[in-house]
Amino acid sequence: MRILSLYERASRAFKDYPSLSKILVVATVGGGGLVAYSDAKPHNAVNVVESSPTAANKKRVVVLGTGWAGTSFLKNLDSATYDVHVISPRNYFAFTPLLPSVTCGTVEARSVVEPIRNIIRKKDGDYSFWEAECFKIDGKNKKVHCRPVQRQSLEGKEEFIVDYDYLVVAMGARSNTFNTPGVEENCHFLKEVEDAQKIRRNVIDCFEKSCLPNLSEDERKKHLHFVVVGGGPTGVEFSAALHDFISEDLVKLYPTAKDLVKITLLEAGDHILTMFDKRITAFAEEKFQRDGINLKTGSMVVKVTDKDICTKDRGTGEISSIPYGMVVWSTGIGTRPVVTDFMKQIGQSNRRVLATDEWLRVEGCDSIYALGDCATINQRKVMEDISAIFNKADKDQSGTLTTKEFQDALDDICERYPQVELYLKDKQVKNIVDLLKDSKGNDKKETLEMDIEGFKSALSQVDSKVKFLPATAQVAAQQGKYLARCFNEMEERTKNPEGPPRFRGVGRHRFHPFRYRHLGQFAPLGGEQTAAQLPGDWVSIGHSSQWLWYSVYASKQVSWRTRMLVVSDWGRRFIFGRDSSRI
Amino acid sequence: MRILSLYERASRAFKDYPSLSKILVVATVGGGGLVAYSDAKPHNAVNVVESSPTAANKKRVVVLGTGWAGTSFLKNLDSATYDVHVISPRNYFAFTPLLPSVTCGTVEARSVVEPIRNIIRKKDGDYSFWEAECFKIDGKNKKVHCRPVQRQSLEGKEEFIVDYDYLVVAMGARSNTFNTPGVEENCHFLKEVEDAQKIRRNVIDCFEKSCLPNLSEDERKKHLHFVVVGGGPTGVEFSAALHDFISEDLVKLYPTAKDLVKITLLEAGDHILTMFDKRITAFAEEKFQRDGINLKTGSMVVKVTDKDICTKDRGTGEISSIPYGMVVWSTGIGTRPVVTDFMKQIGQSNRRVLATDEWLRVEGCDSIYALGDCATINQRKVMEDISAIFNKADKDQSGTLTTKEFQDALDDICERYPQVELYLKDKQVKNIVDLLKDSKGNDKKETLEMDIEGFKSALSQVDSKVKFLPATAQVAAQQGKYLARCFNEMEERTKNPEGPPRFRGVGRHRFHPFRYRHLGQFAPLGGEQTAAQLPGDWVSIGHSSQWLWYSVYASKQVSWRTRMLVVSDWGRRFIFGRDSSRI
Repeated sequence: MRILSLYERASRAFKDYPSLSKILVVATVGGGGLVAYSDAKPHNAVNVVESSPTAANKKRVVVLGTGWAGTSFLKNLDSATYDVHVISPRNYFAFTPLLPSVTCGTVEARSVVEPIRNIIRKKDGDYSFWEAECFKIDGKNKKVHCRPVQRQSLEGKEEFIVDYDYLVVAMGARSNTFNTPGVEENCHFLKEVEDAQKIRRNVIDCFEKSCLPNLSEDERKKHLHFVVVGGGPTGVEFSAALHDFISEDLVKLYPTAKDLVKITLLEAGDHILTMFDKRITAFAEEKFQRDGINLKTGSMVVKVTDKDICTKDRGTGEISSIPYGMVVWSTGIGTRPVVTDFMKQIGQSNRRVLATDEWLRVEGCDSIYALGDCATINQRKVMEDISAIFNKADKDQSGTLTTKEFQDALDDICERYPQVELYLKDKQVKNIVDLLKDSKGNDKKETLEMDIEGFKSALSQVDSKVKFLPATAQVAAQQGKYLARCFNEMEERTKNPEGPPRFRGVGRHRFHPFRYRHLGQFAPLGGEQTAAQLPGDWVSIGHSSQWLWYSVYASKQVSWRTRMLVVSDWGRRFIFGRDSSRI
Repeated sequence: MRILSLYERASRAFKDYPSLSKILVVATVGGGGLVAYSDAKPHNAVNVVESSPTAANKKRVVVLGTGWAGTSFLKNLDSATYDVHVISPRNYFAFTPLLPSVTCGTVEARSVVEPIRNIIRKKDGDYSFWEAECFKIDGKNKKVHCRPVQRQSLEGKEEFIVDYDYLVVAMGARSNTFNTPGVEENCHFLKEVEDAQKIRRNVIDCFEKSCLPNLSEDERKKHLHFVVVGGGPTGVEFSAALHDFISEDLVKLYPTAKDLVKITLLEAGDHILTMFDKRITAFAEEKFQRDGINLKTGSMVVKVTDKDICTKDRGTGEISSIPYGMVVWSTGIGTRPVVTDFMKQIGQSNRRVLATDEWLRVEGCDSIYALGDCATINQRKVMEDISAIFNKADKDQSGTLTTKEFQDALDDICERYPQVELYLKDKQVKNIVDLLKDSKGNDKKETLEMDIEGFKSALSQVDSKVKFLPATAQVAAQQGKYLARCFNEMEERTKNPEGPPRFRGVGRHRFHPFRYRHLGQFAPLGGEQTAAQLPGDWVSIGHSSQWLWYSVYASKQVSWRTRMLVVSDWGRRFIFGRDSSRI
């Protein structure tokens, strides 16, 4: 439909020039990108809590959240199978890795978002979207309680309840203040598009304030002191983007500010970007020093007032207080209250984050899945199941494992317990058989016979390699895609399971467990310098990786529309610089 | 400097491809447009109320406001002559004719603004800008009292006082609610960029609210009822833009809304667009009917609550109350409180708008000028000066005027009293001599002798043609340019005045009085239909004038940057449609 409407627009505009219009359409279709729109179809949305007649005999899936995980799930879900309801306080998906760029106007806010309804209407099925916030998950009765974002003038009809057959929780996380006093009231966060817009306005505010008459030099300095708390990728990228914005654009417009402006990056640990290779950390720290960004490691924030930020030196214990113009807080994520409340209901109140099994099912719940930043996979330990594994592998029930029995069970063990593979890699042992041989001493004979005690001792250290996945967009997107595939094949896989055998039961798991594939991570460091860490510990630092970074970002954008908008924003900035209007 | 920095950016990016970088720069310079940036130079801004040493012996000009009038004045002012201080609550100029397009995302907010500091830094002189609001004009002591927009964390140093030698008041107007109860609280206005952004968000809100579950059909209809108050160009253009946004983009994403959405345009008079030619009014009314826009003329709004808007039919006196989702109020402009207060000080409290003479000087004030929407020119009447005019024209003091005496004085009279020319045109009389002859009966003899009584009676109707200038961007921009020229030539013209002779005094006026040159007016009616009224009563309606409109708008943009951004926004919309994300 969309391609038609594009054609209509084109014909309307070029109706007097048929040849031109033909060229346009050929270019459009030939380009390939816009063909993505051709599958768009209008649909009959379901707007009441009761399902529409066509959807009544389908299972109802309720998706909470439209971030990376929820959107990826939605996009990959098979249209015809389910009656899908999406509930989120935002009616759009935001390409969050570009938020630091939005704070400085390198990219426009509107270029990094995609309306959820645009995604939904391209699917030929029963979908509905409600702009509302879920404030209570009732797992016992399979209901979610929701409240519209715009409560005004809805006359007491605010809250509504939605039943579900399957619930997909993808609500993301909130910024973590670690209960530091004053942070909530005085700091900016950088999680949502609105946050980025507010920061942008605030940077300009600080510069305008610093120019007002009758201020002392100290007061001007205070207004131009930008503090970033947290040396993770977001904090580092924001500091770098802000530095570029100031040195490339703002100092020209605010010439008196040049010598007064200061950026301070506070990090509680010893280094920034600790999740990256040490070479990247070193490069980033050096570059920040060259740029004049004031990097203070080992510095914990203890209080933020409306004028000062108080820090405590982790080494000396000394407390100092610095006046600031703006503070951006990006120290990590915490659990949303609705999820905390839900965790209490299902007996997970002693946990920090909602736990799921390796199939993304919430532990202790039927039909509830959780993915993205709001949950974490609680990887089962080998040692918990060691006897079951041994028994399953010992096919002849001899009480000892032979080399052959082992090799037969090996793939299944590695699939079910990914820590085994990591452990082997770390030990530089080719396969588990060699490991078992090693544990028995330098016993190099061809065959192997091992009892349960030997098996246990060989694998005793394996669980130390259990890894929690980082709270990144990449993980969330892969989980969404994985879960959608599970939903699409639910019927088929119930009959023909594809997963590993159940070591503690009979038969096989329906699906392969979720496995994260790390595709690398980027850290833009400003001044067209980017550090990239790719799989296989390949590290790339410097100017060249900038273009790589651009193209990876562009290719991971959700739609061709967003891709083109971002590229055109880059072009605009390249020609005209960034805008400094306070809007 | 800017062209250099552009070159730097280019070279940085293309440093490995020297040929490419050459092409880019050639294209840039060859294109001509960007050459406009080459005069940009950094300057030493003055940030305290005391003038900088270099500026100390220049006269200080304080400009209040950065709208059409203020910005036009600034751009045309000669850089070296004055110490200029600009004070405005917005640090940017907004291209207001595109605000209705911004409400619907046809054009982005950031594309229609230009930072004032960008304009200032291209001038090589003593300029400073303060983001503050003037809340008191003290004409007696030649001071203005100001308050920063961002009052937070300025610790009691909020207010400051600025002295001036010349004051240029260009603060614009506020929306006029005619004291209708509830308007301030419940309606949207469309004067500022922020207003347009809020309206855009609110339209999406209304659509999202209408989709929530558990609402009755009436409630959905209420949320989707958009009311526009005021049938002037802004109200009409907004209604048309909203209709396009809904029918071209939103109904695809909100299919259930299609049959429920309604746009109502309320106008207290009998017709919309009354300032245009009748053919345009008729065309617009017909087009709105075809589009399904509910046009209610003769309908006065008497009250707005948070749910309903109450109107009174001017004919029947009947009061009816309609539930609404959103109301946009655009019924005209009123005077800002600070200007009302200033008018009291200078004895203009009985007037509705601040009055200036034909040289834009505030009546009763020395050294204060007012232009744009905040003021109106109080054109001097011929009849007030009739004896003085007669005496001046009667060079030989014979008590009668001869044809020759007349013709000598004619140009001066027409320049000083533009109503004379309008009156002649209206009477279809070629020149004033014919008019005088006519008034004396069919006296066709070559020479004419006329005494003061005959002169009075001939001109008795002339003052009925005194015209107040409309409150448009065109008028404001021309006034700004005119005043800048006066300031630039102040010294020269004090010695060699160029204006008409003073009829009531001796010598000549220093400058020609301000004369408005009407260049035509456009009314976009949606669906690529535009009505244009050009000088000489040439009316153009229909599809063809759309492109004309685009090009006129583009050529009147303040900078090449803005021009290109708007054109690229149009391209984006043409390809991708408008975005519906609630940000």
